[in-house]
Amino acid sequence: MKARVTVMLKSGVLDPQGKAIGQSLNRLGFANVGDVRQGKVIEIELDETDQSRARAKLSEMCEKLLANTVIENYAIELR
Amino acid sequence: MKARVTVMLKSGVLDPQGKAIGQSLNRLGFANVGDVRQGKVIEIELDETDQSRARAKLSEMCEKLLANTVIENYAIELR
Repeated sequence: MKARVTVMLKSGVLDPQGKAIGQSLNRLGFANVGDVRQGKVIEIELDETDQSRARAKLSEMCEKLLANTVIENYAIELR
Repeated sequence: MKARVTVMLKSGVLDPQGKAIGQSLNRLGFANVGDVRQGKVIEIELDETDQSRARAKLSEMCEKLLANTVIENYAIELR
């Protein structure tokens, strides 16, 4: 099973990397660009067939390693 | 309109960051983890109502700034 984990900074948390991208886009002539946020996406090949068990494992991975849950949210998609 | 751009290394390109995550997951006891790839996700608030025009603008942003198309693929989602 293939899973995709998306990790984004929580909405209240300052995102200098996103801000820099937004400013660069403006400077390149893209005027109608508003707020930009950057996050990580992690694609994991998982040897597991049960959807709910996979989801539980992935949540555990996020809590333990993939995300800093103090400042980041994560979302899990299975495909 | 909100857009999400996902930038991943092309499949032939070595991804040391993904590899490190995979090894860390194994070391933490997640045995059934196979290949891991890490990429970027960029959420852009776009002042544009026309879907196809937005998509064209976003492609241009990817080509010019967001992705290195020699080694990276990008995907655009509008929501």
